[in-house]
Amino acid sequence: MNCDVLVIGAGVMGLSSAYHLKRLNPGKRVVLIERLGGPGQGSTAKSGGGFRNLLTSGTNRLLSEATIDWLNHLQWETEHDIGLHNTSYLYLLGESQHNRQKPLFKEMGEAGVELKTYSPEELKGLIPDLVTDFTGDEDAEMMGLEPIEVGVQGIRCGTVNTDALARCWEALFLGLGGVVQYNTSADRLILGAERELGLPGEPFVWQGPVVKGAETSRGEITAETTVVAAGVWSETLLDPIGFDSMTRPKKRCMFVFNDPRLERLLHAKGFNDEGILPFTQLPDAGVYIKADVSEGSIWVGVTEDLGRGYGLEDDPQPELETYTDNAYHALVKYLPCFEGVRPVNMWAGQRAVNRFDKIPVVEGMPGLIYVGGATGNGIMKCDSLGRIVAAHYAGEEEAELYGGRRVRVSDISVKDRRVEKERF
Amino acid sequence: MNCDVLVIGAGVMGLSSAYHLKRLNPGKRVVLIERLGGPGQGSTAKSGGGFRNLLTSGTNRLLSEATIDWLNHLQWETEHDIGLHNTSYLYLLGESQHNRQKPLFKEMGEAGVELKTYSPEELKGLIPDLVTDFTGDEDAEMMGLEPIEVGVQGIRCGTVNTDALARCWEALFLGLGGVVQYNTSADRLILGAERELGLPGEPFVWQGPVVKGAETSRGEITAETTVVAAGVWSETLLDPIGFDSMTRPKKRCMFVFNDPRLERLLHAKGFNDEGILPFTQLPDAGVYIKADVSEGSIWVGVTEDLGRGYGLEDDPQPELETYTDNAYHALVKYLPCFEGVRPVNMWAGQRAVNRFDKIPVVEGMPGLIYVGGATGNGIMKCDSLGRIVAAHYAGEEEAELYGGRRVRVSDISVKDRRVEKERF
Repeated sequence: MNCDVLVIGAGVMGLSSAYHLKRLNPGKRVVLIERLGGPGQGSTAKSGGGFRNLLTSGTNRLLSEATIDWLNHLQWETEHDIGLHNTSYLYLLGESQHNRQKPLFKEMGEAGVELKTYSPEELKGLIPDLVTDFTGDEDAEMMGLEPIEVGVQGIRCGTVNTDALARCWEALFLGLGGVVQYNTSADRLILGAERELGLPGEPFVWQGPVVKGAETSRGEITAETTVVAAGVWSETLLDPIGFDSMTRPKKRCMFVFNDPRLERLLHAKGFNDEGILPFTQLPDAGVYIKADVSEGSIWVGVTEDLGRGYGLEDDPQPELETYTDNAYHALVKYLPCFEGVRPVNMWAGQRAVNRFDKIPVVEGMPGLIYVGGATGNGIMKCDSLGRIVAAHYAGEEEAELYGGRRVRVSDISVKDRRVEKERF
Repeated sequence: MNCDVLVIGAGVMGLSSAYHLKRLNPGKRVVLIERLGGPGQGSTAKSGGGFRNLLTSGTNRLLSEATIDWLNHLQWETEHDIGLHNTSYLYLLGESQHNRQKPLFKEMGEAGVELKTYSPEELKGLIPDLVTDFTGDEDAEMMGLEPIEVGVQGIRCGTVNTDALARCWEALFLGLGGVVQYNTSADRLILGAERELGLPGEPFVWQGPVVKGAETSRGEITAETTVVAAGVWSETLLDPIGFDSMTRPKKRCMFVFNDPRLERLLHAKGFNDEGILPFTQLPDAGVYIKADVSEGSIWVGVTEDLGRGYGLEDDPQPELETYTDNAYHALVKYLPCFEGVRPVNMWAGQRAVNRFDKIPVVEGMPGLIYVGGATGNGIMKCDSLGRIVAAHYAGEEEAELYGGRRVRVSDISVKDRRVEKERF
């Protein structure tokens, strides 16, 4: 098979890339392949589905804000339902974290990020289940848990249903005449020489290498341009040709609760029009809580940093002890309503972590465009990244994001990278 | 066993770190462990041993220039013989590479890098074996090889004997009372919590993690600070604790020739006082040539970029076809004296490639200092990096390099990195 553009990976980034490529190049044959049976079934499906504009890096924030606008456009101005809820984010901060992050919140506020702060008393009023003060709790003190000094709410934040979002992207792409092939894994990129001599072993060190497509489980697909958007699995394609994906895969686990004891927490009033708990981060703990309104459940995500190794898993499995023997210790101190409540479901996904600056990468070489490294922020940047991939393909200097804002394509490349490191 | 500082890896970076740590902290017990049987037997031994100050990034150049001064100090002002030859570097450039790199040479010249340029005619005069013009050579044209437009010589460049250098570092460290243990592999870093509770599974997500030493093939070694300087193998220790080494391992092969047909090339006069060929880079080819004076041999190194996959090898093996069926095609066009000459020896090493900015990394976390990512430039930056590790250990803002120049320690960290990307 031959096509103009082959996109590998039908997660949100591959879908968005395929859609924008096809939109801007209607005459080109754009083929999207995916090893799983449907759209967004890899890390997209395992994500918390949160979106936020609380980011310190200007470029990074731009990628998010434009995508958030696009997601809202999809939800409210088209026939698509991506399960979007503008229910905000809430960061619960102890003293030391607050001291560390206060300058960042100030910076973000000055850059136009809509924020609202809450005193411990106000938080207690809105979330009666929350413990903000550990006076007299020797365990909490021994554990080094800090009382909550402040809550910072990000207003233009919320969640989407990642499955619905993936299906929406798929429908948009198919609507333009794009071709999707599921159950088709890319096994190897085909690397050739710019000027092929027909000798075995090309490309040689003295030749310019070019990606010419991929060998897949359904045979060879040659393409003028191959877009690698395979998330954490990108390295399995890129490492063999010596192209650095700039990311490392790190597992994160999600636990789902559905229990009357969590009802009051789920329906915390006063933060948003829907009267539900914002996407809430516990102090310093790598633990966050998401209210899933449609199912009436609460998700607890655990994003481990140091202590959780890097390493790719083909089908990452959740580890119950990450909840029971780890996050739970702290969670139950801040929210005793979790005491004795067991998860009814759990799963694990993988983040493609770019530890260098935590900002996504769109980098090319002849015949190849790679998009990745969203560091757990893929959902909230997917539309912008797809547009940048399409601009890179067209050789344009700038990409026009949704809403008309522009970003220089080379700014998020590796070669000519020009971004401030993300510090939040 | 317990020590104050445990350094893992007795390559040039680990040796230099151990030496400077001991020098500045004579009362501390500094223990250096190495899985191999002697100093510098890993990638250090497999390196070309070249050093150069041709670098565009100010910080990066500073690291090299100070180390070059240190190496010259060792060779000429101490009793050590590290086999140093200030025989310079020579870049042979075709038109397109010259156009690309001309602004870089200009920049380096303005920054004080001593350069000299040669016309093709001058090059032919000094290296009679060199072909600079492919007029009438249809093969060369078909291969896309460019005639040589210019030669650029870097004067303050040369080579050392990497084995002698490693032994010198070892002697310096032992002379201060440092402890070295060979045949001791670090199998796993010990990760604990800042405030240990004594519960299984620590550190938990809500605890501050601390490195407390390493499990080694000779038992546990606890240390207040552990320095990981294991080159490409650093990832085997850092990945499991979720600390990104920021580098990928890439093999490179070296081929050694000892043949009367190469005598004239080896003794190319006019470039340096020793009357031998500079460390010479062929146009765009990833192929370089080193005159090994002491053995009267010529080394041909092949540094592959795209086309050579990333991937760690425990004991990397050279591939003869990287020479015979790859580099040779181009090499023999520029230097027909290689025609029919077979290598008498070959080996393979691995570079720890930091593709992000090609500049080394010294990054810490509680209990740990990591030094790496020299991207094939470890020899020429080893002294500076060891001094930066020691300054990091002491909590100093700046490190004093050999000769008194200073560099801000955080500039080459990951967290607060402030370097210009290396473009040469």
